[in-house]
Amino acid sequence: MQFSSALLEAAVNEFSRLPGIGKKTALRLVLHLLKQDTEAVLQFTNAIAHMRREIRFCKRCFNVADEDLCSICSNTFRQQQTICVVENIRDVIAIENTQQYNGVYHVLGGIISPLDGIGPDDLNIEALLQRVAEEKIEEIIFALNPNIQGDTTIYYIQKKLSGKDIRITTIARGIAFGGELEYADELTLGRSLQNRLPVENYMNR
Amino acid sequence: MQFSSALLEAAVNEFSRLPGIGKKTALRLVLHLLKQDTEAVLQFTNAIAHMRREIRFCKRCFNVADEDLCSICSNTFRQQQTICVVENIRDVIAIENTQQYNGVYHVLGGIISPLDGIGPDDLNIEALLQRVAEEKIEEIIFALNPNIQGDTTIYYIQKKLSGKDIRITTIARGIAFGGELEYADELTLGRSLQNRLPVENYMNR
Repeated sequence: MQFSSALLEAAVNEFSRLPGIGKKTALRLVLHLLKQDTEAVLQFTNAIAHMRREIRFCKRCFNVADEDLCSICSNTFRQQQTICVVENIRDVIAIENTQQYNGVYHVLGGIISPLDGIGPDDLNIEALLQRVAEEKIEEIIFALNPNIQGDTTIYYIQKKLSGKDIRITTIARGIAFGGELEYADELTLGRSLQNRLPVENYMNR
Repeated sequence: MQFSSALLEAAVNEFSRLPGIGKKTALRLVLHLLKQDTEAVLQFTNAIAHMRREIRFCKRCFNVADEDLCSICSNTFRQQQTICVVENIRDVIAIENTQQYNGVYHVLGGIISPLDGIGPDDLNIEALLQRVAEEKIEEIIFALNPNIQGDTTIYYIQKKLSGKDIRITTIARGIAFGGELEYADELTLGRSLQNRLPVENYMNR
């Protein structure tokens, strides 16, 4: 792409490095910013630079945090005895958006995946075991993606926790709401039959 | 959307103000930046802030510029006697990308559109007439979108230039390459019949 301004070109190139943003979209975004007041653009760039420089990761659960502890860990209204184990920060936000969970989290920072060279030591698993040893944890809920890596990670951690008096659960897998039985894959449909629920349980939700 | 960090939330909100970027995309982009080195993120924000603060508009053609004159106006290898009149900067970039044009530009900064309250005085038309009066212009090529506003703008400027010894042209309208006749609208197809080209002209291009 030919630009008649090096400043414009530099800004477009930076934008187009973001995932899913091509050169044309980058140009559209930059020309949009060019039309805004300088103050509005500086507010945009400052918010991002400030976020990158100041953001921390919670000492306890590895969620993003503005202080040493994240706002969920430091919230005394949340049940600190229930830990939901997730892969990454995006999953924390997804679960928080359901407004159905009142415990705390533990962000693994990835998932066991030998093919990608990620083993247990690359994840925040040791810190989770330490939390279990030090805090009075009653339940650990695994909210990992339903695939081989997720199941491997659950298996590994569950082995490490064997012998402890803790309830270990995983989020339900089954047919999604609005999904159609005939299009569900065999594994999902088969498992949802095995793990069927008494109707009175289901209706009370 | 629930965030556990005010810093993260501020950055996502700023990103989601950009056109075509929703909250989910904004979150994806911010989490991507969070994974990058601080230096890379500051390079991103600095390029944008720098661009917004330092960029200028060419004194002569109103294209974006790093100096008083844009790199096209100050390029002595370009034919300064031919002016291509366009609506905005994006059109300059689109034409430059064709690598088929070696003249200079004049960016109107919009198009005459009474319904949107945009009249001739809101555009850089007076400056164009002044260029024609002061510089030795031989040809003016209108490269405006083929719609009523574009045609109105061409008509208005052409009237103002009447009596001057200048060739006034417009880019060809017709069936796009790769387009199909049966799906072309009547106006385009009709005009392309009226403005038919001798085949030898066409083949020599």
